[in-house]
Amino acid sequence: MDIPDTPAVPVEALTALLDGRWAHIREEARKRMAERGLPDTADLTTEQYRAVVFEEMRALAESGYPTTGFAPEYGGAGDPGGSLTAFEMLGFGDLSVMVKAGVQWGLFGGAIEALGTKAHHDAHLRAMMSMDLPGSYAMTEVGHGSDVQNLRTTATFDGDGFVISTPDESARKEYIGNAARDGKLAVVFAQLIVGGERHGVHALLVPLRDEDGAVLPGVRIEDCGPKAGLNGVDNGRIWFDDVRVPRGALLDRYGSVDADGTYHSPIEGDGKRFFTMLGTLIRGRISVAGAAGSAAKKALAIAVRYGERRTQFEHPDTGAEIVVLDYLAHQRKLLPALATSYALHFAQEEMVSALHDLPEDADRRELESRAAGIKAVGTWHTTRTVQACREACGGAGYLMENQLPRIKADTDVFTTFEGDNTVLLQLVAKGLLTGYQQHIGERGMALFIADQFVETVIERTAARGLIERLVNAVTPRDEETDLLDRGWHIKVFEDREKHVLDTLARRLRRAADPDTDAFEVFNDAQDHALRAARVHIDRIVLEAFVAAIERAPSPLLNRVCDLYALANIEQDLDWFLGHGRFTTARAKAVTGAVNALCRALRPHASSLVEAFAIPDRLIAAPIALGDNHTTVSAARVMGSHGKGESGKAVAR
Amino acid sequence: MDIPDTPAVPVEALTALLDGRWAHIREEARKRMAERGLPDTADLTTEQYRAVVFEEMRALAESGYPTTGFAPEYGGAGDPGGSLTAFEMLGFGDLSVMVKAGVQWGLFGGAIEALGTKAHHDAHLRAMMSMDLPGSYAMTEVGHGSDVQNLRTTATFDGDGFVISTPDESARKEYIGNAARDGKLAVVFAQLIVGGERHGVHALLVPLRDEDGAVLPGVRIEDCGPKAGLNGVDNGRIWFDDVRVPRGALLDRYGSVDADGTYHSPIEGDGKRFFTMLGTLIRGRISVAGAAGSAAKKALAIAVRYGERRTQFEHPDTGAEIVVLDYLAHQRKLLPALATSYALHFAQEEMVSALHDLPEDADRRELESRAAGIKAVGTWHTTRTVQACREACGGAGYLMENQLPRIKADTDVFTTFEGDNTVLLQLVAKGLLTGYQQHIGERGMALFIADQFVETVIERTAARGLIERLVNAVTPRDEETDLLDRGWHIKVFEDREKHVLDTLARRLRRAADPDTDAFEVFNDAQDHALRAARVHIDRIVLEAFVAAIERAPSPLLNRVCDLYALANIEQDLDWFLGHGRFTTARAKAVTGAVNALCRALRPHASSLVEAFAIPDRLIAAPIALGDNHTTVSAARVMGSHGKGESGKAVAR
Repeated sequence: MDIPDTPAVPVEALTALLDGRWAHIREEARKRMAERGLPDTADLTTEQYRAVVFEEMRALAESGYPTTGFAPEYGGAGDPGGSLTAFEMLGFGDLSVMVKAGVQWGLFGGAIEALGTKAHHDAHLRAMMSMDLPGSYAMTEVGHGSDVQNLRTTATFDGDGFVISTPDESARKEYIGNAARDGKLAVVFAQLIVGGERHGVHALLVPLRDEDGAVLPGVRIEDCGPKAGLNGVDNGRIWFDDVRVPRGALLDRYGSVDADGTYHSPIEGDGKRFFTMLGTLIRGRISVAGAAGSAAKKALAIAVRYGERRTQFEHPDTGAEIVVLDYLAHQRKLLPALATSYALHFAQEEMVSALHDLPEDADRRELESRAAGIKAVGTWHTTRTVQACREACGGAGYLMENQLPRIKADTDVFTTFEGDNTVLLQLVAKGLLTGYQQHIGERGMALFIADQFVETVIERTAARGLIERLVNAVTPRDEETDLLDRGWHIKVFEDREKHVLDTLARRLRRAADPDTDAFEVFNDAQDHALRAARVHIDRIVLEAFVAAIERAPSPLLNRVCDLYALANIEQDLDWFLGHGRFTTARAKAVTGAVNALCRALRPHASSLVEAFAIPDRLIAAPIALGDNHTTVSAARVMGSHGKGESGKAVAR
Repeated sequence: MDIPDTPAVPVEALTALLDGRWAHIREEARKRMAERGLPDTADLTTEQYRAVVFEEMRALAESGYPTTGFAPEYGGAGDPGGSLTAFEMLGFGDLSVMVKAGVQWGLFGGAIEALGTKAHHDAHLRAMMSMDLPGSYAMTEVGHGSDVQNLRTTATFDGDGFVISTPDESARKEYIGNAARDGKLAVVFAQLIVGGERHGVHALLVPLRDEDGAVLPGVRIEDCGPKAGLNGVDNGRIWFDDVRVPRGALLDRYGSVDADGTYHSPIEGDGKRFFTMLGTLIRGRISVAGAAGSAAKKALAIAVRYGERRTQFEHPDTGAEIVVLDYLAHQRKLLPALATSYALHFAQEEMVSALHDLPEDADRRELESRAAGIKAVGTWHTTRTVQACREACGGAGYLMENQLPRIKADTDVFTTFEGDNTVLLQLVAKGLLTGYQQHIGERGMALFIADQFVETVIERTAARGLIERLVNAVTPRDEETDLLDRGWHIKVFEDREKHVLDTLARRLRRAADPDTDAFEVFNDAQDHALRAARVHIDRIVLEAFVAAIERAPSPLLNRVCDLYALANIEQDLDWFLGHGRFTTARAKAVTGAVNALCRALRPHASSLVEAFAIPDRLIAAPIALGDNHTTVSAARVMGSHGKGESGKAVAR
């Protein structure tokens, strides 16, 4: 397949397309982050690193970006979309800062805002925003990570206030950010017990440390110790030995207890209330997805710059050394990943926009599901992409100075925190099946069983009219449609989703039979369910890319979208062939088209990564900044009895 | 698909099967390593860590294992297979020690033995073995990593000795182990120039440091600085500013220079000589493959033990919490990887055996190619598996105390050092095509062009008679053959290899036409070539597994082999469907069989990892040693004003 040359696009124009609706936030964040640079953490102990990150947090608080989402009456700008975009930009910097910011302003602050009422807001929001009140979000327990509904910490009403208790070791709070060093107040998730009756999981404010930082009586905190990465974040374990808090400590928007011990809630049913409260997690997941996207972009920028410069082996005819990015295998490692980063970028922006514009009382389920899915698909993309970039840089990619090791180590946990990706995809699958709500209480959060399914319907989330037109324009004879036809891509993605979902629904219907072991039915179909979720998210991502191109047509972005769509299809070729969707000739043509698109986009690889506009001070890797040969700090040269001085010799 | 229960096998019996020919070496290594435990490196600076590793090396040298491969007249045991097995066992320990041992005894010592002659052996082997003479293997240059043939350091005969020079920055030696701190002598690879004539790459002994450890005049060494992992190894950069060495410094087994300046070599042709000398790399690659295999086994042992204990979510009918390894998705993450680890184990042992038994003057090309391929396939398996294990342990897998982060960081570079995996697979592909030798000189190491191809022939490497019988017993109607029929598996693997190779040969034939751009032809087929290499290695690995079961029949190992074979086939379903090998029904049945095998092997998962017999002191991860809840060191508890003392409270 030959693809005509694609006209080059000025980098600035591409950047403008990517910057989108919150361009001003991105621009300011870039300027600010370029000025500050990356904190120099190379030779620090863990405690020193944590102190540096705390100072970065103070400075961040002063900048106002991370808190721009809070209400103006407390000093924010009431701009949740801007706030999420700011978090995304933090992904270009030190990721410990990003994660600690997420804990403080996303989870801790977000929970006070979303689950608390005016008294809590008045008492804590300003201090939380300014970092005068560093806090923790104590949800996860060591015995119940993803299964939040079954956590075991208790908050028992004793007639006056609540007693917070850790009943056994499995109930200790685990991996809690801001716990080991800084947290003064925690949002603690516990089973609420009033007059012997259980009301499900609720959140309460529990002080952890006094003004001087001493841990308070009844609270025990242990350091989680060194981690693979993110060592600037002070994760800890917390036990509560019957800690008493006043009645007002309960974040009571969705559940309150009167002075006389009567429980009230605007939401009936523990399960529904629980999921409403969990809705506060949506911003955390969107933030992680965004920051993961930024980290992948930075890794790609480093690897593409290196791949443009690095040569290996000679051309058999000319004898000239070949730039490694000219090799198909190298392009295959980087360019489909780059195209996917573009696709996820637009999906992320669309999701942020959708949340920003969502009316307060709107149904948030679609968006919660989308956030869970994009977080899962996006963080896995980051893990794979950073790994590919590391390998594409060979030994140079293994040196800390070249940043990839740190990006890799810091982002690794993204796939399992803020919701384990596998569990999140199950959540998405469950959301896709109708009729699941009836069973959610008794059947557990990760299991989904339905006794009736309606035919699944593809609900388009973006550019609905355009997509309708594109799909309708495709001739019915798939086999002959141009492989670069966008309508065909969408049709293929939609058809895949619909078929996977329909067949999943059919398999799970068996569980309605009371004689079957519901778990067996679910478990046998688990990989099927995960696929359903993934292909659903893939379709949403493609739609977002298509919508972005519709807003600002660009032949180059069109090519990038082609590569995203076809590389995604190629990864599922076994499915398309196995379900009679493609002939073998068509399947071969898909692989040929991916190769051709790699060749066609190869000349634009640099523009595509430079368009991310990541400041050089944040890229920081010597292999990506000028000559690989001039990266030497004279201080590290150990022997120099030869003819030149070390500094000179290095520069010769 | 229902698979009948497989009888359990005592762990000791499985261990005996795995231990194989060098069981005594494995047993002794286990005993020794269990006694020493892992060095405690948690709070060390890089320099301290290096010092600890150096002491471990001294102790290792005293144990005699790593040097058992050298000739008895120098204090070895003349047991190369035993030596390679000892390296494999080092993979269960601290990997900095393993890599430093590989540099010292594998590369540095191995080069002196293989490329030098008696004078070099007499002068250096004993001191090298005892660690009195720490040394470096200075091959890689920053500008020419994989392209060794084009490295630029020169060794110019000046009538009396050689002058070693680094002509420009791209020729600086890079990532050289033992260089930054310890190395006293280096085997330096350089372009040999005698009387103005170039004779290609040769190796010379060049002193780096004096007795006191001071870097010698003319040598400059710089520390590579912190790395993603392996920070106990002192990697450095080296420049030579016209360093003079005597004529005897040339390791002259394959090329020597007379006092009068006449060059002699027993091998005609620079290219052929070069590849003969590169043959010394084979042991390094086998060692890395072995140690990578051990690291993956250790990660699997940790993840399976955790997966057996960890619960998540409740059974919808019983309400009991479900052990995570009971989930299909969890089994899918771990069990096919475990089966592949078994397969690679037997392939590794067979390769070690083959090298051990190879007559001195035999053609080593098949084995060199196999070592390159198994190193590539095996180290990628390790990277993927350790990642899967990390994710399967959730947040716990991210804590350093649980070892997975270190295994991950330390093994990450295995995919690109001792030969970049992509380059190695190309080497394998080249080896599979006949007639390539003629062009190797002028066309470069990574490119392969042939002007004539014979029909490819599958050469079986193991259990030839048995495999012949198994394949012949398969009925011609594939579709109806039992999916667990071993002969069918082999047939499928062989057919895939043959077809991929035949079509690759046909594509590359076009390059013989002088009007084509040979590079374009090669580059367009690069992914095809990489696939050819991979499926070739996959087939060799399957044969090795089959041969091992033939030596010691075991129903359980048979099931493990089924899972290896079918999971491997499943990964290539797109290929099998796309090439008309499977019907869609057959493809679906393959996926069903993989799921069924996961279920069938689930009860044996523990036995299968315990059979690796990794001492608990090396597993070390609290999540894999007894209760996850009793991992607390009192020293790290920061607040304990509550009712219990910290120690007691933790154990309650």
